[in-house]
Amino acid sequence: MGLLGLGTVGGGVARLLREHPDRIDRRAGRPIELAAVAVRDRGRPRAQELKDIRFADTAESVVNDPSIDVIIETIGGVTDARRLVLAALANGKHVATANKALLAEHGAEIFAQARRFDRAVAFEGSVGGGIPIVQALGVSLAANQIQSLAAILNGTCNYILTRMTGDGMAYAHALAEAQRLGYAEADPTLDVDGTDTVHKLAILVQLAFETSVAPGAIPTRGIDALDVADITYAGELGHAVKLLALARLSDAGLELRVGPTLVKHGTPLAEVRGPYNAVRVVGDALGDALFQGRGAGAMPTASAVVGDLIDIAAGRALATSRIRAYWPANAPPPVLAPPSQIKSRYYLRFTIADQPGVLARIAHILGDHGISIASVIQHDSGDDAPEASPVPLVIMTHLAIQAGVDSALALINRLDVVHAPSVCMRVEE
Amino acid sequence: MGLLGLGTVGGGVARLLREHPDRIDRRAGRPIELAAVAVRDRGRPRAQELKDIRFADTAESVVNDPSIDVIIETIGGVTDARRLVLAALANGKHVATANKALLAEHGAEIFAQARRFDRAVAFEGSVGGGIPIVQALGVSLAANQIQSLAAILNGTCNYILTRMTGDGMAYAHALAEAQRLGYAEADPTLDVDGTDTVHKLAILVQLAFETSVAPGAIPTRGIDALDVADITYAGELGHAVKLLALARLSDAGLELRVGPTLVKHGTPLAEVRGPYNAVRVVGDALGDALFQGRGAGAMPTASAVVGDLIDIAAGRALATSRIRAYWPANAPPPVLAPPSQIKSRYYLRFTIADQPGVLARIAHILGDHGISIASVIQHDSGDDAPEASPVPLVIMTHLAIQAGVDSALALINRLDVVHAPSVCMRVEE
Repeated sequence: MGLLGLGTVGGGVARLLREHPDRIDRRAGRPIELAAVAVRDRGRPRAQELKDIRFADTAESVVNDPSIDVIIETIGGVTDARRLVLAALANGKHVATANKALLAEHGAEIFAQARRFDRAVAFEGSVGGGIPIVQALGVSLAANQIQSLAAILNGTCNYILTRMTGDGMAYAHALAEAQRLGYAEADPTLDVDGTDTVHKLAILVQLAFETSVAPGAIPTRGIDALDVADITYAGELGHAVKLLALARLSDAGLELRVGPTLVKHGTPLAEVRGPYNAVRVVGDALGDALFQGRGAGAMPTASAVVGDLIDIAAGRALATSRIRAYWPANAPPPVLAPPSQIKSRYYLRFTIADQPGVLARIAHILGDHGISIASVIQHDSGDDAPEASPVPLVIMTHLAIQAGVDSALALINRLDVVHAPSVCMRVEE
Repeated sequence: MGLLGLGTVGGGVARLLREHPDRIDRRAGRPIELAAVAVRDRGRPRAQELKDIRFADTAESVVNDPSIDVIIETIGGVTDARRLVLAALANGKHVATANKALLAEHGAEIFAQARRFDRAVAFEGSVGGGIPIVQALGVSLAANQIQSLAAILNGTCNYILTRMTGDGMAYAHALAEAQRLGYAEADPTLDVDGTDTVHKLAILVQLAFETSVAPGAIPTRGIDALDVADITYAGELGHAVKLLALARLSDAGLELRVGPTLVKHGTPLAEVRGPYNAVRVVGDALGDALFQGRGAGAMPTASAVVGDLIDIAAGRALATSRIRAYWPANAPPPVLAPPSQIKSRYYLRFTIADQPGVLARIAHILGDHGISIASVIQHDSGDDAPEASPVPLVIMTHLAIQAGVDSALALINRLDVVHAPSVCMRVEE
């Protein structure tokens, strides 16, 4: 096999292959040899156990090497990865990749190439780190129609939210700590704005619902604009805030979204803390199940990628690629449930003038839109506050139609007694 | 395919196949036809959707039918199942089975036969109901050396323990309720005495540690002698009591056990409630992961069995059976860690004479065996109790050597001020 990239994941893969060759050969049913490694910068310092690795001149020379049967792609990004994976498949090589952006954005092209050359593309490492959720949805749970997925898919965000929750830390402070501990990249944009999560959701949707959805078609919000005050109020209302990826099938269509979401204390997803990932799956035969584990990091992701390598060597991955038509060509986009058909409870926070009658006016607008109120938190502005300071008004609704909530919020935000853009988050049970 | 048995699991399998043939054929990559069903009692009333099933004359006629490629065995028990599965394999048929007793007790014979005739034996349904833990340990996590497993594997017991915990219900009362709700069999002996759990543990140990252990070699206790008082005291000490199956690899060997165990509140296994199963896995690359779901019942187990059927049809199951030498012939038994090398915290309850100095004498004996005390609960016997009534003394220890705890308990039980056999349970973090 040839390895492209020797960063966090690639380094972990190389380490696992070099430290445990007997175990891996035995479980793969044949010897696996790391024949070539391509890196961008050969001069970069490497961990001790990777010091004597021989580097190929170029990534192209690895994907063109006729002695290589399998390419492991861990370089990340889309442009080079796409070109190299397509070339590897054209050269008759199987591919294992941990690249969620590549599959979410170019899955149809990659899998068309795989089918054309009858090769396997395995991608357990692309979602959920070490959690075998790709195999579970694609193989183990194949008897089911999956009805819903709710998942925490970004360890960086979950770490930041955990710190904001437990210690009331501000977002910027929690992010800086995550970076110091190596949980967040130097440029964490794709993690915290939800892009990474929506890529992973698009992959899970392909597996679970056999439909190709463009990540851009999924309503997505990150945690980068989240105020710690909302985490505190959510806590007072008995909920944790999680960056949740949601997919739910109903008669109205497929509901898809990524965003900060209130999850009830004591439910499994609310209890997922630190850099962990978790996926809650509901299937028509299975009922509900939960998969939880380390969602990122060198070795957990390497566990998934080397698992794919073993699956390829054993011939199972090709059988799966042939039968399950992942990312079929010219697939129609999924029927998405319209906002008029999506029902949820909502958390709303308004910043309002501290004067009589405001709650009544807001409640009136909500009522006009069929939205009934389950809980309210309104504290006065305190003795120290300058007179007429705006105060927060927090409302948890009963089940309400999304379209109604959208309309009500637009009206409420136009009231002269409402000061700032309102906060609106979904509540999942 | 031919189906043996149309009870809870077999009925679920038949229902899934008949209600969703398109889905299952598509994911199997070929049409799957339920060609024959054998049942013990053809006159038994059946659910509406199974009414028009055509029954074979005998189970033998199904396993000997040359038009059948795959046998699904759901009859349970060991004698008939063993004979029929061996015959099916000899006739060149693949087998999917949910029969944990069969594999735990006759795995070596079954897999020798499978290898001899180059057929697959798939057994996802044998452990954990719908949770795909067999596929996870056998395939997805194959890059790892598994280091430990801690699992709740019997839904009946977990339901009973949940009721005893939440409602302080006595064991007999909770069992009767579980039977009324259909969670417990009319004869629940194999569930509540730990037999079912130890069978499942033996299967997981084969997958995770590549070693064949006889269920009888695993120290096993059930919940049938559990006193609700100990659940209450455990709660006061911040722990839930779970029927835990444990396997842990160390330099001293493999530690295996099944028994009621204290698990700290707030940890995932402590929060598994009702008829759910869960498996916590630690792997050297993976780190820790948790799999949770419905551990029994018609449809969750059918999800696993039909998943196996799809895996067989896709050719993957045979690849796995060929490569992973499950239950190899003449395998040496595993090296078990001796009691002198097993360290744990312990929960102890003594029933002692209500007189001065007893705690001191017990503490002294514990101290002599290197066992230090972390917490003590001792309530007086109350004003209403007759004078000199015995009182409970509950002790939670720090980490202690099992051999030392065994010796200390033997001495303490011989004291004239100690009334009844003592209670001793392990504590897991």
